[in-house]
Amino acid sequence: MPKEFPADSVGLVTPKRMHLDQPLQLDGGQVLPSYDLVYETYGTLNGDRSNAVLIEHALSGDHHAAGYHEGVTKPGWWEACIGPGKPIDTNRFFVVCCNNLGGCRGSTGPLSVNPETGRVYGADFPIVTVRDWVRSQTRLADALGIEQWAAVVGGSLGGMQTLEWAIRYPERCRHAVAIAAAPKLSAQNIAFNEVARQAIMTDPEFHDGRYAEHGVIPRRGLALARMLGHITYLSDDAMGAKFGRELREGKFSFNYDVEFQVESYLRHQGQSFVDKFDANTYLLMTKALDYFDPASEHDGNLSRAMEPATASFLILSFTSDWRFPPNRSREIVRALLEGDKNVAYSEIEAHHGHDAFLMPIPEYIQLFSAYMNRVAGEVGA
Amino acid sequence: MPKEFPADSVGLVTPKRMHLDQPLQLDGGQVLPSYDLVYETYGTLNGDRSNAVLIEHALSGDHHAAGYHEGVTKPGWWEACIGPGKPIDTNRFFVVCCNNLGGCRGSTGPLSVNPETGRVYGADFPIVTVRDWVRSQTRLADALGIEQWAAVVGGSLGGMQTLEWAIRYPERCRHAVAIAAAPKLSAQNIAFNEVARQAIMTDPEFHDGRYAEHGVIPRRGLALARMLGHITYLSDDAMGAKFGRELREGKFSFNYDVEFQVESYLRHQGQSFVDKFDANTYLLMTKALDYFDPASEHDGNLSRAMEPATASFLILSFTSDWRFPPNRSREIVRALLEGDKNVAYSEIEAHHGHDAFLMPIPEYIQLFSAYMNRVAGEVGA
Repeated sequence: MPKEFPADSVGLVTPKRMHLDQPLQLDGGQVLPSYDLVYETYGTLNGDRSNAVLIEHALSGDHHAAGYHEGVTKPGWWEACIGPGKPIDTNRFFVVCCNNLGGCRGSTGPLSVNPETGRVYGADFPIVTVRDWVRSQTRLADALGIEQWAAVVGGSLGGMQTLEWAIRYPERCRHAVAIAAAPKLSAQNIAFNEVARQAIMTDPEFHDGRYAEHGVIPRRGLALARMLGHITYLSDDAMGAKFGRELREGKFSFNYDVEFQVESYLRHQGQSFVDKFDANTYLLMTKALDYFDPASEHDGNLSRAMEPATASFLILSFTSDWRFPPNRSREIVRALLEGDKNVAYSEIEAHHGHDAFLMPIPEYIQLFSAYMNRVAGEVGA
Repeated sequence: MPKEFPADSVGLVTPKRMHLDQPLQLDGGQVLPSYDLVYETYGTLNGDRSNAVLIEHALSGDHHAAGYHEGVTKPGWWEACIGPGKPIDTNRFFVVCCNNLGGCRGSTGPLSVNPETGRVYGADFPIVTVRDWVRSQTRLADALGIEQWAAVVGGSLGGMQTLEWAIRYPERCRHAVAIAAAPKLSAQNIAFNEVARQAIMTDPEFHDGRYAEHGVIPRRGLALARMLGHITYLSDDAMGAKFGRELREGKFSFNYDVEFQVESYLRHQGQSFVDKFDANTYLLMTKALDYFDPASEHDGNLSRAMEPATASFLILSFTSDWRFPPNRSREIVRALLEGDKNVAYSEIEAHHGHDAFLMPIPEYIQLFSAYMNRVAGEVGA
């Protein structure tokens, strides 16, 4: 936690918890009798409750999107875009971000106690879908008294949740902002997820997902999954600019210790992730990604899938993103245009790769701010 | 083994073994007192020994480049390009391909017995470099009485060896053909190698590389490394065309069994690799890749590094190759042109990704044949 918060930060924040006891029917067939969602809010809900913005997190994200937690130096994951005067301006919007169901940062998930057995869910926690998430979030919105979001906003997997909101709950989603997203995973995307899953599941300490009962965690597998993830989040250029072929010791060691800076970076990312993320959550998040494909119910016709949406859309992509490249965003834009939807699209020049959506890139911030400014104006915020 | 060999195949082939007992000084500082290289030859060496072509293999390749082994259905790895009437026409050329030093298919490597200890080398086998390989191959050439190769030819890591031959032994390398190669790995390439290495080395059955002594192999790690490799060998498009999002059972299972066809493919590739490749060899091959960077001795100036070469070059790349994309080949071409070298370059339209160099793509075969035809003409073959 910095000694003084930056003026454009929401500053100190404290997570809240909402218990929702209306049973939730999941796409996989199971029913969750009740569940908790942990969430944060920034800014103030206005009198007519029209200025609420829902932030959707990505694979390894959580409810802590902005500001600082007591005693922690690093701010929330989207500090670049949420705060006073930032694109999602907390002087104008009431911002809500929850940890997704199945997560590992407080919302009901594999680390929670299964009320039916009195034991930690672990591997018994059901695989959830993007639709399940959105369904669970509608209950949170109800509980907060928010009938319609001024905007639902997300990057990457968060962008998929945004699309799902726009399709399933058109009357509750005034604007939909999907950044660095895709309408479904490609075979290559699924392949990367599968290697990550196999890394975790073949770790001898995975114990079929019941590692908690054995008092261990599948550290090796989860670290590998994270290392692999990091490669796909950065562009080749960004990695080159950041690390190049620089050696840690200046010369080759002819052994298998860390030699190149990029190796050091990856190992560190892998190791530090293991202590803050749960392997079962990682697995189910990748499955939610794999399964998302709203067009599949319409013979692959995305335009027909988006038909119910009444939101205005902002779709943004980044030139160097090779996880969800601009052509994936253009698929969404084409489908929306075919359906005569209101859509703004921009492909932002950035060398950062997929991670660009988390960065304060001037062109990005400017475009995003302009759009959100319009949203704020519409709702009188 | 097919009942009848195709007319354009070299047919049944038998590997040969050459024992080389002149000590080999390695870049890493160690000296190999003697070593064996296992190799295959196709075609006939002409009277003035001028029609020999050396084939260099890639990461998981070996000496079995063409034709069939007794009882085995699958032909050699470059059957598409080597044989009667093929680009490397065995009616005209005498073709040699050896398993690299450190390999696991018969040449001296981690699976061999260390003459100094009487025990299998395993993790004690030294890390070798591309230069070490080429140095060891000059001894094989000497033993075969080949003073000058009509051409040294290789794809991927094989292309790197080709460049090394042209630089270090210009008088022995008349033509150099480097396909889908790069003058050095990018940070992203190294990152992928590092994840593969970590997968192997963190497998509890790796035992610091002494798994043979424990009677096990690091199956999980090696399978993961191979799965990851396969993602980088295929383009996103090729994977899409091959597998798309097709499900094995037609619907989601909401568990972690194989669901998508691409998962089934990857798991199969991983599992079958484990029984035919050695983990220590895989590790050292990736290190040879990481270390290769001829320009590094010349302040990063590749043109100066290539200065000694007198060969004529053919450089080929494939549009959809994202492991070593066309711009990596163009780096080589630019360096050669700056040095006034004789170079032909073509970027071939292909959707197959890096693996394209192994495929009978018409434009590729035609260009490759035309060039090798010229080579054959020059040496009167």
